[in-house]
Amino acid sequence: MSIKIGILGYGNLGRGVEAAVKVNDDTELVAVYTRRAPESLTINTPGVPVRSVAELEKGEEPIDVLVICGGSATDLPEMTPKFAALYNVIDSFDTHARIPEHFANVDAAAKAAGKIGIISAGWDPGMFSLNRVYADAILPCGKAYTFWGKGVSQGHSDAVRRIEGVKDARQYTIPVEQALDAVRSGSNPELTTRQKHTRECFVVAEDGADKAAIENAIKTMPNYFDEYDTTVHFITEEEMKRDHSGLPHGGAVIHSGTTSEGTKHVIEYSLKLASNPEFTGSVLLACARAAYRMNNEGMTGAKTVFDIAPAYLSAHSGDELRAHFL
Amino acid sequence: MSIKIGILGYGNLGRGVEAAVKVNDDTELVAVYTRRAPESLTINTPGVPVRSVAELEKGEEPIDVLVICGGSATDLPEMTPKFAALYNVIDSFDTHARIPEHFANVDAAAKAAGKIGIISAGWDPGMFSLNRVYADAILPCGKAYTFWGKGVSQGHSDAVRRIEGVKDARQYTIPVEQALDAVRSGSNPELTTRQKHTRECFVVAEDGADKAAIENAIKTMPNYFDEYDTTVHFITEEEMKRDHSGLPHGGAVIHSGTTSEGTKHVIEYSLKLASNPEFTGSVLLACARAAYRMNNEGMTGAKTVFDIAPAYLSAHSGDELRAHFL
Repeated sequence: MSIKIGILGYGNLGRGVEAAVKVNDDTELVAVYTRRAPESLTINTPGVPVRSVAELEKGEEPIDVLVICGGSATDLPEMTPKFAALYNVIDSFDTHARIPEHFANVDAAAKAAGKIGIISAGWDPGMFSLNRVYADAILPCGKAYTFWGKGVSQGHSDAVRRIEGVKDARQYTIPVEQALDAVRSGSNPELTTRQKHTRECFVVAEDGADKAAIENAIKTMPNYFDEYDTTVHFITEEEMKRDHSGLPHGGAVIHSGTTSEGTKHVIEYSLKLASNPEFTGSVLLACARAAYRMNNEGMTGAKTVFDIAPAYLSAHSGDELRAHFL
Repeated sequence: MSIKIGILGYGNLGRGVEAAVKVNDDTELVAVYTRRAPESLTINTPGVPVRSVAELEKGEEPIDVLVICGGSATDLPEMTPKFAALYNVIDSFDTHARIPEHFANVDAAAKAAGKIGIISAGWDPGMFSLNRVYADAILPCGKAYTFWGKGVSQGHSDAVRRIEGVKDARQYTIPVEQALDAVRSGSNPELTTRQKHTRECFVVAEDGADKAAIENAIKTMPNYFDEYDTTVHFITEEEMKRDHSGLPHGGAVIHSGTTSEGTKHVIEYSLKLASNPEFTGSVLLACARAAYRMNNEGMTGAKTVFDIAPAYLSAHSGDELRAHFL
């Protein structure tokens, strides 16, 4: 019997979860739910219905877990508690400052309903968070550094697209090699924002746009670019399509710490992802499996990856894991 | 109130756990237990008693968790079930073929006593195992490779020491760079034992020993060396002491997998350890913290790292973890 998955929202992340379901035999996609007109949407899984979010709100959909693929700014703070009152749910909430509040809201709704709500799943927050916790638990006298990239930041790409005269844009976040080397050496350097990452933008300008003004607007944009060394390249629409249509990403969590005078250890977890949404979707689906099983065992309330024993994420039994993975 | 730790066995690993207790404020070393005459042992923590294992067997020692630092060949199969009937226990059992049997024995004893017994903790088995499971759960269409080193293999060093004419020896296991590169590229290569690792031995020969015969005995030794490219260096006792007195180790688990046609992701977890026993001891201590808490919540029986929600390993509260690590 496979785990019945519903996906709410069919953007990049929703399609990523859909791709993950296809390669996980113990899961089955039951429906994609949308706020758009269902008939306007064609999905990549033949035979699976697209249904209105209004159906979902009735609480009677035949799903074991709902994977909520919405934005952290406005969608998830409202959707995740709402649907945690009806189904086991997973989200990828990533507004760090609001995690305690979001956790509390989901916890109250899920507990009252006897459901599980796993929040902030993915790779950061998610797998990177896990590695920060494991490393700190093992080497409390230490320090962790998180690097992102090389990869496409969708938030930064959107910010560039909003500049006047910009037709399309893609922004890559790139970790600085010297910073990575210094951290990997275990020297625990103090690094400024500028020393850790650079930003590289590929921009398609409107005909006749002032490229110098665009470049200046990017490089001086507060919060997004002003604290970084940024490179701007103007390219054609064809080049954008040919060279920058993917959403690769990745990064590393590097923790170095000591256990006694002069005894230094370095733990590194790194990701090279061809598709950020497909990888994130795969983490969400593994968490969906965990939510289903944990709820079947009677657990309820809000959870994060910190609360999930790893065995719950795996399709293999405890015996199989001990025999082949330990 | 700190977690009261007992250490059974005071070899390299026992001293590693002792070092870990010193840098974890929520733990406290209550006693070291030994099969030797207690008065013959001086430990690195002033004021902490060394007691006989016979005291431990009475089941009345004031400890929350016993960390058992014995060998997997004969010590742990007997000790861990025996003491799991009396205390929460942790071990680093690493004889892969016998893990199911060991798990069952510890499970029965610990359940009957209402205790927890965490087996096979450390880095491999342990953190490497965890990373194999996480990666497989996220990317089931993929393949994991484990590399060890550069580091000292104590089993192989001991094997060389048993050769006639050898006074002392140290064996380093070294991953082959080309193999690492091929795996990191995501090409999922087929690799033989010889292609993955080389072995390097530093040997102090007895006066007048036949060095050619020693070198030949090493290189042709079944199971230990015959399937590897091995280099042998003869050095002086002084050089051994000066250059090879540490026990560094490390390695990497690299998993590459796809989520859709042509979409390849690479997950890597790597360790560079200045002291294998101190790092292993640090993992055991984090597991001791988890055992104590899980048992306080009513959980009993045998566990592995797969069964431990990461939050249990950390000294920080759930609120702290969500605020600072997620």
